Amino acid sequence: MLSDQQFLRIPGPTPIPPSVQRAMSQPMVGHRDQETKHLLQTIKPKLKPIFDTKNDIAIIAGSGTAGLETAVINSVQPNDEVLVIVTGAFGDRFAQICETYHLRTHRINVTWGEAVPLDLVESYLNNHPAIKAVFATFCETSTGILNPVEKLANIIRRTSEALFIVDGVSSVGAVPTKMDEWDVDIVVTGSQKAFMLPPGLTFIAISDRAWQAINANQQPRFYLDLRKYRDNSLLDSTPFTPSLSLLYGLKQVLELFENEGLKNVFARHQLMMHMTRAAFRNLNIPLLTNDTNASPTVTAIQPVDFQADSLRKIVKEHFHTVLAGGQANLKGKIFRIGHMGYCSPADVLQTISSIEIGLQMIGKKITLGAGTQAAQEVYLGGFRK
Amino acid sequence: MLSDQQFLRIPGPTPIPPSVQRAMSQPMVGHRDQETKHLLQTIKPKLKPIFDTKNDIAIIAGSGTAGLETAVINSVQPNDEVLVIVTGAFGDRFAQICETYHLRTHRINVTWGEAVPLDLVESYLNNHPAIKAVFATFCETSTGILNPVEKLANIIRRTSEALFIVDGVSSVGAVPTKMDEWDVDIVVTGSQKAFMLPPGLTFIAISDRAWQAINANQQPRFYLDLRKYRDNSLLDSTPFTPSLSLLYGLKQVLELFENEGLKNVFARHQLMMHMTRAAFRNLNIPLLTNDTNASPTVTAIQPVDFQADSLRKIVKEHFHTVLAGGQANLKGKIFRIGHMGYCSPADVLQTISSIEIGLQMIGKKITLGAGTQAAQEVYLGGFRK
Repeated sequence: MLSDQQFLRIPGPTPIPPSVQRAMSQPMVGHRDQETKHLLQTIKPKLKPIFDTKNDIAIIAGSGTAGLETAVINSVQPNDEVLVIVTGAFGDRFAQICETYHLRTHRINVTWGEAVPLDLVESYLNNHPAIKAVFATFCETSTGILNPVEKLANIIRRTSEALFIVDGVSSVGAVPTKMDEWDVDIVVTGSQKAFMLPPGLTFIAISDRAWQAINANQQPRFYLDLRKYRDNSLLDSTPFTPSLSLLYGLKQVLELFENEGLKNVFARHQLMMHMTRAAFRNLNIPLLTNDTNASPTVTAIQPVDFQADSLRKIVKEHFHTVLAGGQANLKGKIFRIGHMGYCSPADVLQTISSIEIGLQMIGKKITLGAGTQAAQEVYLGGFRK
Repeated sequence: MLSDQQFLRIPGPTPIPPSVQRAMSQPMVGHRDQETKHLLQTIKPKLKPIFDTKNDIAIIAGSGTAGLETAVINSVQPNDEVLVIVTGAFGDRFAQICETYHLRTHRINVTWGEAVPLDLVESYLNNHPAIKAVFATFCETSTGILNPVEKLANIIRRTSEALFIVDGVSSVGAVPTKMDEWDVDIVVTGSQKAFMLPPGLTFIAISDRAWQAINANQQPRFYLDLRKYRDNSLLDSTPFTPSLSLLYGLKQVLELFENEGLKNVFARHQLMMHMTRAAFRNLNIPLLTNDTNASPTVTAIQPVDFQADSLRKIVKEHFHTVLAGGQANLKGKIFRIGHMGYCSPADVLQTISSIEIGLQMIGKKITLGAGTQAAQEVYLGGFRK
């Protein structure tokens, strides 16, 4: 009976809201017809506030990595010097893409679970004036840290002529992203995180400064050529057949964002982060990240006296709740809770109280309810102020 | 009341069957969880018969053009000589991709609406022994011709060491595609044509001979790197987050193919083609293509005494039936009827009888019912044999 029930608490893909699911059931339409033109006309202006930008935003059929590659191959070319800030698996992926395309790739490698130290970036840029672009991950999904993108942007503008290119895959739509005010050049995100859609779309917002580099760039590219998307966007069209079902879902997602209000969406994610962190703190189970750079979208927990993967297994078995494990060198050492997109404080309470039972079952001594209680206090605290 | 009704008779995207629509409403799952692993395990063996192959088939999130580019950048590299057979807009796209990547691109340009003459290919290959790959379009969607892929394969094998790479976007799943028997090296297709899914997936089937070239190829690539898809496929996984909703839909599509039987699917498309062609012949309205190389999936009609686009407009207005126009140099000169995927003989009768009214309305003198009658005769003919 409960085989249909599953609570997806991984940091993406995230659950699909019912109204978005229904919107995606729209029968197919012609991608060169008025229906698609109107759809794109509705979507485009409503997408910009999520990035807080006036810039163009390209929508490409593909996964988030296609978006990261799009950012790389359009903005820089072989032998250009680039700096990649690597704070986890997705920073590493950005660097791998740069290396694949024969860029002279400098890496600042940061211990996984920590944010990048700002002074390190500043001195690195001062010492390497030829760097043409800096790549950073906003929320590093593999660890749950949120890198200080605004401050990084300040440093880059002060010390360098480099483009600043940000992987916003598990942050945009859940965390304030002031692309124009911060002066970020490219922000990439995907559909299956805070955008509450199935995987299959990637979004690339592009500043005027970035367009200059893109227009001058000789790197061969076709499907991921941003110029093609811009030229067609001017006609409310797309260069290649778009993922129509996802676009219908996106239209509804943007409605949901408007209805809740972006400020409230961001506050909800903050609240869910605080509830989750308070819970594990009260259970005396260590968090991977410190409070300063914790992401509102995903929390990594680093147990010292039980197996993360045993807990994940038993929680899935008993409560149909899916938690994420660790990636690469954190494999088996942490578990991660996604609290992003279509996720509420009530969902967080459910997740924590289920995990408490799981902990008891695998033999970890805890006070049942202690985590839940702390999360409840956080929730109530917001109303006592 | 009828605003919900639309009959999509363009050559892709095609209508989605209700059971496929329902399958895509599956709630989101973790892309690294058992659910996705089982989904891929179910899909992979059932996909191969559609290509009639034992080869690996990569599934990539992206549109058909991403698949074409994948074929190009994995199999050849800058300065390699390639031959592209251009019989319409999609052959031209293949050539554009090759040119973008600095391949020495030879084109055989064929008049739009005709299939490639075989002797031309044979002599071309004899005169250009350095050609490393030949690119051809199976069904040229822009004109409705079906190029003789089997015969082309024979010629290429007899005269050359070149790889043979086929765009099967609007044919695979509707037309017999004997990849192994014909000895084709790469066959590309997309989700939104005979596969009856929304756009957003591309499939690339790869021969052993092609794998040798792919493994040796130094061309930089990341998201479209077939080696990554192969390595992950061995673990029933994907290198990047897959389009999960479309994969759930695909599983159901493969069920539908099995239930109807591939032979019956192919015969149905043949029948729909014959019905459509007989109708316009009986109406004395010229077809763009001759019978020998007509595609079972799309029929182009080339009116001489009325405006194709006026007909399309009125048929959409009155009957919610969407026909395709012409592309590039055929814009305004033809209209195209898609009879592909989730489309039946009854749908063809509906389309033709609606078009007959539309013709009358725009002032073209016809005998009402003459096209429908011819189509009916074709249908009945199949039972009289």
